[in-house]
Amino acid sequence: MRVGFIGLGRMGTAIAGRLLEGGNEVAVWNRTPGKTDEPVRRGARLASSVADACAGAEVVMTMLANDGALLDVALGPGGIAESLEDGAVHVAMGTHGVRAVRTLAEQHTEAGQAFVAAPVLGRPDVAAAGQLGVVVAGPAEALGRCRPLFEAIGRRTFAAGDRAESATSIKLANNFALGVAIESMAEAFALVRKHSVEPSLFYEVLTEGLFAAPAYKVYGTIIVEEDYDRVGFTTELALKDVDLTLAAAGDARVPLPSAAVLRDRLLAAIAHGDGDRDWAVLAREQARTSGLE
Amino acid sequence: MRVGFIGLGRMGTAIAGRLLEGGNEVAVWNRTPGKTDEPVRRGARLASSVADACAGAEVVMTMLANDGALLDVALGPGGIAESLEDGAVHVAMGTHGVRAVRTLAEQHTEAGQAFVAAPVLGRPDVAAAGQLGVVVAGPAEALGRCRPLFEAIGRRTFAAGDRAESATSIKLANNFALGVAIESMAEAFALVRKHSVEPSLFYEVLTEGLFAAPAYKVYGTIIVEEDYDRVGFTTELALKDVDLTLAAAGDARVPLPSAAVLRDRLLAAIAHGDGDRDWAVLAREQARTSGLE
Amino acid sequence: MRVGFIGLGRMGTAIAGRLLEGGNEVAVWNRTPGKTDEPVRRGARLASSVADACAGAEVVMTMLANDGALLDVALGPGGIAESLEDGAVHVAMGTHGVRAVRTLAEQHTEAGQAFVAAPVLGRPDVAAAGQLGVVVAGPAEALGRCRPLFEAIGRRTFAAGDRAESATSIKLANNFALGVAIESMAEAFALVRKHSVEPSLFYEVLTEGLFAAPAYKVYGTIIVEEDYDRVGFTTELALKDVDLTLAAAGDARVPLPSAAVLRDRLLAAIAHGDGDRDWAVLAREQARTSGLE
Amino acid sequence: MRVGFIGLGRMGTAIAGRLLEGGNEVAVWNRTPGKTDEPVRRGARLASSVADACAGAEVVMTMLANDGALLDVALGPGGIAESLEDGAVHVAMGTHGVRAVRTLAEQHTEAGQAFVAAPVLGRPDVAAAGQLGVVVAGPAEALGRCRPLFEAIGRRTFAAGDRAESATSIKLANNFALGVAIESMAEAFALVRKHSVEPSLFYEVLTEGLFAAPAYKVYGTIIVEEDYDRVGFTTELALKDVDLTLAAAGDARVPLPSAAVLRDRLLAAIAHGDGDRDWAVLAREQARTSGLE
Repeated sequence: MRVGFIGLGRMGTAIAGRLLEGGNEVAVWNRTPGKTDEPVRRGARLASSVADACAGAEVVMTMLANDGALLDVALGPGGIAESLEDGAVHVAMGTHGVRAVRTLAEQHTEAGQAFVAAPVLGRPDVAAAGQLGVVVAGPAEALGRCRPLFEAIGRRTFAAGDRAESATSIKLANNFALGVAIESMAEAFALVRKHSVEPSLFYEVLTEGLFAAPAYKVYGTIIVEEDYDRVGFTTELALKDVDLTLAAAGDARVPLPSAAVLRDRLLAAIAHGDGDRDWAVLAREQARTSGLE
Repeated sequence: MRVGFIGLGRMGTAIAGRLLEGGNEVAVWNRTPGKTDEPVRRGARLASSVADACAGAEVVMTMLANDGALLDVALGPGGIAESLEDGAVHVAMGTHGVRAVRTLAEQHTEAGQAFVAAPVLGRPDVAAAGQLGVVVAGPAEALGRCRPLFEAIGRRTFAAGDRAESATSIKLANNFALGVAIESMAEAFALVRKHSVEPSLFYEVLTEGLFAAPAYKVYGTIIVEEDYDRVGFTTELALKDVDLTLAAAGDARVPLPSAAVLRDRLLAAIAHGDGDRDWAVLAREQARTSGLE
Repeated sequence: MRVGFIGLGRMGTAIAGRLLEGGNEVAVWNRTPGKTDEPVRRGARLASSVADACAGAEVVMTMLANDGALLDVALGPGGIAESLEDGAVHVAMGTHGVRAVRTLAEQHTEAGQAFVAAPVLGRPDVAAAGQLGVVVAGPAEALGRCRPLFEAIGRRTFAAGDRAESATSIKLANNFALGVAIESMAEAFALVRKHSVEPSLFYEVLTEGLFAAPAYKVYGTIIVEEDYDRVGFTTELALKDVDLTLAAAGDARVPLPSAAVLRDRLLAAIAHGDGDRDWAVLAREQARTSGLE
Repeated sequence: MRVGFIGLGRMGTAIAGRLLEGGNEVAVWNRTPGKTDEPVRRGARLASSVADACAGAEVVMTMLANDGALLDVALGPGGIAESLEDGAVHVAMGTHGVRAVRTLAEQHTEAGQAFVAAPVLGRPDVAAAGQLGVVVAGPAEALGRCRPLFEAIGRRTFAAGDRAESATSIKLANNFALGVAIESMAEAFALVRKHSVEPSLFYEVLTEGLFAAPAYKVYGTIIVEEDYDRVGFTTELALKDVDLTLAAAGDARVPLPSAAVLRDRLLAAIAHGDGDRDWAVLAREQARTSGLE
């Protein structure tokens, strides 16, 4: 398929690579120019503008860092909505808010195009291996057309119906559950430490049984080793995510007290200078408020 | 070894069975008489009193429902502290509070006995199969003597040092983490449901990746199936546990906001008549407060 | 002084009336036309556009419902920034967010104008009587020039320095404290009701001593009388305010757990259909979650 | 009347003084002997034991620091229940938990005596001036007999019905509301400080209008002056109170999220060494977690 791809950060680059391997014709565009080198070397066409990336494309995919960038690229002057052909599809794969996604669904529909939200589960290395989970929602016909692309990208596609925001809410809820798991470990580790328990022992107990899963093993290890400078996902980015989750909860009128606890912990961590560390650092923030640091 | 065993509920019965299979001489006592039938049929001696269960025992194990029962049996008139021989060990395997455990450690030490906290991880069927996790703490010498018993009972023993309350805090922290995991699912399911997502789909996303662990699979399934009447652990018992956790946190001066969120949710569930249902019912309570029921 | 006044809701109308009484020349503009009738009858000039309201004005005041309307009127095409004369002042009196206020301060400064945030404390009837509290912040020189206007409007002016957002944060923090006071009553009334106490008796105890202040008397009375349909400030508007407060807290990296509790209660109340009732209705929401309704 | 008075701390001494001034015959007893000097000098009889204080008394009043002391003095060997004459009344004026109060009501009733809970509102100096608020609950007939005593003690008596725990819950709820007010100030002051606002200015805004009441003026002043070493009520005692409130809420199945927020803040303050300071110090704790200290 002819695919435009906008947003070549680490994740976008990995996904674009999968699309190229799958034999698709890919035109890439990125606001910061240097980032397109790798996909171009692997056979992508370097588009000169968003409009150029959309030219002739059946599908345009975006992997952008936040709602502002997405709305700008999609709905701004010279953006996707203005440039995409009738009946073509915009697939947004970043983690976005439900309001932005709802706006995009409406505007693209008005412009005669289809909009699909397709947030992904996994890190860049997982993406490069084609092992992402992809949660997709949007018009059934558009989902059908994009299916080969999702299969090129991921190990498994979860179809969440015809409302784009449904996929968005799943991604946000999944990240939220992860944040709460980290927060629960932060609290639990502080509790046992204050009762003279070695963190590594508690880690053993926790991850050997009920919690023998990546969420607890990966982040529990970081907490035990206090290895907060090996950053997978920063506290600042986690705050952005939680704010999207709380906004989605606000829109839907869902009280979400655990998200509020998580947000306050992230804010305290950032207030103490840990904004650019891995978000597992909220275990240190909990230790701090418990008088352990 | 000669072992006294006090408290023959479902869990106590399963554990006593393992001890008997392991070739130990076990004397059993239970406040309510009928409960001792099974271990007696399997070779245990029926003790006529707590004191009788302690007579000649190297180790007395208790598996009691709450701190009140434990303190009564251990420190009351005719209790373990009065009856146990010099140098013998009281091993308390129930889920208890740090204050009760601290009191017991002090009183038994004063009485010339040793006290070990040995809470277990797992359900009665796991216990019957000898697959429990056993978290133990107390005087090193006493732990050493009890080791064959722990090995008869469980798949793995976690040694948490010489302060009994350390084991207690691990057990409470583990249960707390489970409660928070359930609460996070309760909130997450409500959020996605309000964005038109089928619960079973969200379950798939959640448990296929980061959360591929029993905590999420077992309780996520109950939530998806709304199968709250198949009770593993009741909301009322969960409240008792959370209150022990909050008390342990208070003693240690550890703020524990997620435990507070969990407690309030449990209280609301009980206020709405769900006290005797499985504690996964807090997903229904969250749905209720979100206007979904 | 020559004053432009934009936003003639109930509060704007009352304030514009005070300015006219004070002998100022006032040009009024409102998006919805009918709202300007009263000030025009009292001597205001009806402006034909935002630009017309700004023409010749030394000060333009806005009293708008939300950040969107403010940013649109101030920075949109034909807006205040484009229309206001060099050195003139834009005084924003609504309850706004710190980000919007910061943006306005920057943009007006760039345009050679001054920006003052001047949120007010009090209801429309208080405004009509010239008894508002006015919290002001912005460039000292601009504050000095506007002083006669603030004196015409209010009983007391609180000068909060030269950063506009300081005034904003005070207004938000004051509303937040009020929301928390209502929430605390909601919880306290539920607690005593469940212990067989008449709400009116608890009201007596509370407001006779430590809490003998309008916040507790006004809202406590509504709660005791369950008079939630006599609306002073709706639950929906309160949610908007709390979201501004949480955003301000997020920007400043201040964990604000009581605001989170308040937001969740408001969301639950709205989820149960109480969005358009007086926000004291969160006492009913608390009663509901306590199994009292 | 002939009155026994047990518990001569600062508050008990002030109240006993009022009773003596009112012409009652008062026998005093205190565990620590020296404390009875002042009432004895003012005409009280020094009792040699709890039983002696009860001998011939129509009413025995207790003002004790916690549930443990109260239950011990009332129900222990040689205690009030054993010593008090048939039909006499035990009036407990301290701040106690609903469970303890319920137990006392049952036990005294069984012993043929009446039990009244009569917690007071106000500090020792207020008590000495006879200006306390007194919240009373218990059997109507007993309340009637004690009325002259309540009138000697306080400015106003609030009759809360025939269940002793009703009075208890009112006292706890009132203290809870105060704690939440302090917490809300703690959060609000941190928020405005981070937006460059002088605390004293925010104090002016707050206490001049909606919050012109002692709760905000007294504690707001301490916060502005950071005068946490002039102790009215310690953080540790506040924690004890909040724990009683949370226990009362647990018993009644009332979720109380603001109490949980308050408890966690108190715990963090204590963890940082502020347990013996005035509980307004939770403003410093909030500042600490916001990166302001």
